[in-house]
Amino acid sequence: MDPGDAARLGPGLAARALPPRLLLLPLLPLLLGRGLRAAASASTGAAADDSSAMEELATEKEAEESHRQDSVSLLTFILLLTLTILTIWLFKHRRVRFLHETGLAMIYGLIVGVILRYGTPATSGHDKSLSCTQEDRAFSTLLVNVSGKFFEYTLKGEISPGKINSVEQNDMLRKVTFDPEVFFNILLPPIIFHAGYSLKKRHFFRNLGSILAYAFLGTAVSCFIIGNLMYGVVKLMKIVGQLSDKFYYTDCLFFGAIISATDPVTVLAIFNELHADVDLYALLFGESVLNDAVAIVLSSSIVAYQPAGLNTHAFDAAAFFKSVGIFLGIFSGSFTMGAVTGVVTALVTKFTKLHCFPLLETALFFLMSWSTFLLAEACGFTGVVAVLFCGITQAHYTYNNLSVESRSRTKQLFEVLHFLAENFIFSYMGLALFTFQKHVFSPVFIIGAFVAIFLGRAAHIYPLSFFLNLGRRHKIGWNFQHMMMFSGLRGAMAFALAIRDTASYARQMMFTTTLLIVFFTVWVIGGGTTPMLSWLNIRVGVDPDQDPPPNNDSFQVLQGDGPDSARGNRTKQESAWLFRLWYSFDHNYLKPILTHSGPPLTTTLPAWCGLLARCLTSPQVYDNQEPLREEDSDFILTEGDLTLTYGGDSTVTANGSPGSHTASTSLEGSRRTKSSSEEVLDRALGIGDQLVSSRGTRLVFPLEDNA
Amino acid sequence: MDPGDAARLGPGLAARALPPRLLLLPLLPLLLGRGLRAAASASTGAAADDSSAMEELATEKEAEESHRQDSVSLLTFILLLTLTILTIWLFKHRRVRFLHETGLAMIYGLIVGVILRYGTPATSGHDKSLSCTQEDRAFSTLLVNVSGKFFEYTLKGEISPGKINSVEQNDMLRKVTFDPEVFFNILLPPIIFHAGYSLKKRHFFRNLGSILAYAFLGTAVSCFIIGNLMYGVVKLMKIVGQLSDKFYYTDCLFFGAIISATDPVTVLAIFNELHADVDLYALLFGESVLNDAVAIVLSSSIVAYQPAGLNTHAFDAAAFFKSVGIFLGIFSGSFTMGAVTGVVTALVTKFTKLHCFPLLETALFFLMSWSTFLLAEACGFTGVVAVLFCGITQAHYTYNNLSVESRSRTKQLFEVLHFLAENFIFSYMGLALFTFQKHVFSPVFIIGAFVAIFLGRAAHIYPLSFFLNLGRRHKIGWNFQHMMMFSGLRGAMAFALAIRDTASYARQMMFTTTLLIVFFTVWVIGGGTTPMLSWLNIRVGVDPDQDPPPNNDSFQVLQGDGPDSARGNRTKQESAWLFRLWYSFDHNYLKPILTHSGPPLTTTLPAWCGLLARCLTSPQVYDNQEPLREEDSDFILTEGDLTLTYGGDSTVTANGSPGSHTASTSLEGSRRTKSSSEEVLDRALGIGDQLVSSRGTRLVFPLEDNA
Repeated sequence: MDPGDAARLGPGLAARALPPRLLLLPLLPLLLGRGLRAAASASTGAAADDSSAMEELATEKEAEESHRQDSVSLLTFILLLTLTILTIWLFKHRRVRFLHETGLAMIYGLIVGVILRYGTPATSGHDKSLSCTQEDRAFSTLLVNVSGKFFEYTLKGEISPGKINSVEQNDMLRKVTFDPEVFFNILLPPIIFHAGYSLKKRHFFRNLGSILAYAFLGTAVSCFIIGNLMYGVVKLMKIVGQLSDKFYYTDCLFFGAIISATDPVTVLAIFNELHADVDLYALLFGESVLNDAVAIVLSSSIVAYQPAGLNTHAFDAAAFFKSVGIFLGIFSGSFTMGAVTGVVTALVTKFTKLHCFPLLETALFFLMSWSTFLLAEACGFTGVVAVLFCGITQAHYTYNNLSVESRSRTKQLFEVLHFLAENFIFSYMGLALFTFQKHVFSPVFIIGAFVAIFLGRAAHIYPLSFFLNLGRRHKIGWNFQHMMMFSGLRGAMAFALAIRDTASYARQMMFTTTLLIVFFTVWVIGGGTTPMLSWLNIRVGVDPDQDPPPNNDSFQVLQGDGPDSARGNRTKQESAWLFRLWYSFDHNYLKPILTHSGPPLTTTLPAWCGLLARCLTSPQVYDNQEPLREEDSDFILTEGDLTLTYGGDSTVTANGSPGSHTASTSLEGSRRTKSSSEEVLDRALGIGDQLVSSRGTRLVFPLEDNA
Repeated sequence: MDPGDAARLGPGLAARALPPRLLLLPLLPLLLGRGLRAAASASTGAAADDSSAMEELATEKEAEESHRQDSVSLLTFILLLTLTILTIWLFKHRRVRFLHETGLAMIYGLIVGVILRYGTPATSGHDKSLSCTQEDRAFSTLLVNVSGKFFEYTLKGEISPGKINSVEQNDMLRKVTFDPEVFFNILLPPIIFHAGYSLKKRHFFRNLGSILAYAFLGTAVSCFIIGNLMYGVVKLMKIVGQLSDKFYYTDCLFFGAIISATDPVTVLAIFNELHADVDLYALLFGESVLNDAVAIVLSSSIVAYQPAGLNTHAFDAAAFFKSVGIFLGIFSGSFTMGAVTGVVTALVTKFTKLHCFPLLETALFFLMSWSTFLLAEACGFTGVVAVLFCGITQAHYTYNNLSVESRSRTKQLFEVLHFLAENFIFSYMGLALFTFQKHVFSPVFIIGAFVAIFLGRAAHIYPLSFFLNLGRRHKIGWNFQHMMMFSGLRGAMAFALAIRDTASYARQMMFTTTLLIVFFTVWVIGGGTTPMLSWLNIRVGVDPDQDPPPNNDSFQVLQGDGPDSARGNRTKQESAWLFRLWYSFDHNYLKPILTHSGPPLTTTLPAWCGLLARCLTSPQVYDNQEPLREEDSDFILTEGDLTLTYGGDSTVTANGSPGSHTASTSLEGSRRTKSSSEEVLDRALGIGDQLVSSRGTRLVFPLEDNA
């Protein structure tokens, strides 16, 4: 497909310019309602009178036909997904690792896209359309007088004057083209929430500093470098006459922002399967989860920068700082929203005995998590980002208050939603390559973009790793750095950000390029992960809850003079004071307030808060606490009769270590790696009951490999 | 609120006339897309040019405002549901039974409705609207030329000429008014699917004849009687001058159809909690599930009858038979669709080893069940009905092929969806009483309707029970009949059918009346169930898998001369030949083909199908079968070491009894009544693995009460 071909495709429905913050939310029933209305109301005339029977019949038939086409187009997607699932099973069954399910979904999407594009007859536009001239501006609602009866119309979008006749040229292609906001508001939230909710907290928190550095600094660096390189490419294109329309510097930066969101889903799936190094997993996963959030907010900040200077090429300090302010405002606002609803859910599940009714508990959990999104959108923040932090908070606090059944229910519910949403997005990507009607294929831009994302990733992974290694005790080895460099896949988030706005020529070119980058990275990197892992000597088959041996080649551990003093040293070296502060605050105050674990507040809060402390502390804490108080020492995890002192655990025991949190994570981690039947057995043995208590910093760890 | 008040309310968005079969499906993403588009595209102008900055800003702000209001309105519902969940917990915790969760949801909905109606300022209509005259008919798409730019508009609905100024008068009221099709296409399918999927098959099938009679004949009788009585009421209203618009005979019949769908959710919840008689439960549940389907198809058949005769009062034989034909066509078509997708899912889950990957399996199950709805809608059948039979088929066949984890996952997934959808509908009902803008309160009609539904239910329960008792071995006692009479609640289905079409005066009156009937029945009958049960001497605390004692007062069992011959007799007397035929066909052919249980096909199919039989028979069947073949007798359920001959089981063992099906049902039943921890233990013990095999007709039953 060349640019000329793309130009002939005519306008699709999906392309519309949306102002930055109009993330037009997933209000399922409401909007569905509108959608249904839009589709249904063609038949409104039917009720009016007996006189216009013929007219009614025509409209009714039209609506029925449209309804049927809707069904068929959705059936197409469902069959696509079904096919994908069956093939995934086949692949997993035969242990095929060179193609991940997402890559597979894209291939099937591509095939169906080709069939739809070239196989279905192009139905020429009906005479549904009628022009009528209006004076002032486009209203969102229109009243039309048809032979005495009034009809209400809603604005759908603008049509380029030259393309009026090609509107609705191919109904089937139009039907399979979803509104871009669907991706952003329906499909991304469950994916992102699941990412936050299933975060392996222990390894995440112990690499938090590095993850934050990669996610924030790294994404900013990558965005800036890609933006500047692409601006060079655009200038070059102008010189050689390859550019047919405007392409501003901010457009380039915007492209840098949307393409900086990595999504190593393929790599992580293989990591999970092969039990590759957990720290590398945590670094990659944490970075990709957070840089999605950073990329969203960054891209909207860049859009907010645009209107400030009319000369968009020049650097405007005021506008820049305004953009930075917007970035910080949206980000912290969304973060707060997510954290607050998570905390509220934790409090509700702690202080009611909802856990006796897992169905109610699960429903409440689902509703509260969804309300985060709505709340953030209602306040003008970014729902997707709020949902991410809500997920993390829910996993950190609420999860501990849930009943055993609700824990698996919520995990499974979001797992299914995530799975369906992700595969839907990837199969839609495949489809979009052929059915999307506004592609702008520019070979120079595409090649430039591939080079730019490579350089952009290199420019943030290697320097950042160097600086991080200065402060890290567990150095990030060269092989890890290369693997992180290699794992810079682009996926659902880049696609969703790119498809949101495909109105201008520049944006269309970006969309096409993003699509190709996603294809390439998912297929090539997905296929190359296993060879790359062995080539880089990254160990696989690691128990996720075991720390790397001290003399592992990817970590250079400085041995202390004894487990305890070494731990003290490490704590000071590794955790910045901020994180230590947070850990002890979380362990001493937040955990006891929000969950049934941690030390009783009566011991951690000052004496004058005695009453409050007694109200907030869960009675279970005392129960768990009492026997420990005399010993005043160790953190004991009661798991059946399996208890083993695991003295070698070094990094978890940061000062004021999140005792029960660590324990629950490790339990969780071990549970995830077990097969379902073992899981059930575990639960039957009461392991899930999490008889966990903690007070000191030393850990008594269970032997996880018993199963 | 009186009729005068109602007249002042102005037109809501929800009221629109829809042609009968335009069930405008739940195509989630697609329609959401449109919805989003409708909401978002007000901002389309923003991308157009730099010159119209002010204009853009206005449209953008409008869209943003609308987006925020959408968020807030959905948040309202989520908070409502959250509140409901918390109160339900409180009620369950304190064992309050006089108010069911659905009744509670309605009360909260009412309160919020009052607040929205009288508490929010009525924002006067913006100058969004503009009239422009068109000549011919209402087109579904409109192109509007605004100072050189073209905008696309879609038809939303008709507005009464007198009410043009009041369009969008109160944005908040408008926002909380959903499109009626949402109820039909988004919220009902999960409810109905769950009903089918969680059907307690054993008791359902043993009462199948009676259930079908109540559901089909009963609903038809009830519809006809209510329709005729209401026609009398309407005539009376005309005489006393209470009727201000047309109200045809077919309208009355339509009202009869929509109000005949009973929904004893409250009663059944209490039955479940108190472990009331399982046969009564099966009768009530089965009837309500099937009569929902009957009512849907009946109402669309009545609408289809309408246009045939211009004089709608007269009886037109041709049109009547056409309607009957439509009824049969839609019903059997939908039934076939549902059954076929269920069978396909069963085959897929049988012949792939998907059960090694519960996530894939659950996703596939979900997609296939959803595709039933779409397939039926695409073919012009009724998706909701198809989904019901799909649920039953999935439970009967596919469920047995699923892995243990997928079984609980699918159950739990649909349980949550069902719970949320049901409570949403009920809280919306409460809300609608005040926020719906087209109520027509007619005291005469309402009183008439209450009398009519009482008489209509009486006229089908008592005579039908009498006739059924002639053929039934287990007679339906008077107390059961009274209880069934009493349990004629109306709920979600009646509401969804009534709200689908509120365009005409008659339909508005019906809607208001239906709403009040639902309120009254849910509150009064919900509260009265427990007293009624004890007043009618219906035994509670029954083990769902135990049969009633022979001399139970509600069943008069004729004792045979011995367990075996009695069984033979009963089989002949109780099961009509059709059902016996079905049972043996199901057991000998369908079960072995579609699941891993039943006798091997090689033994049941004729010799010339040997190859086919060998291909279709699951190897597990042979494994299970081998040890049994020598004994050639009993149906043995291997459940750990618990095996007990349960000779007293009489009715299940119809000739060619569905051996493993019965076993799995009883397992399922017992599992459902157990607490979650016991359930987990059961599964850990391998009970869930269902090492079930069968060949003869005698049963060896486990002792279910061990837990």
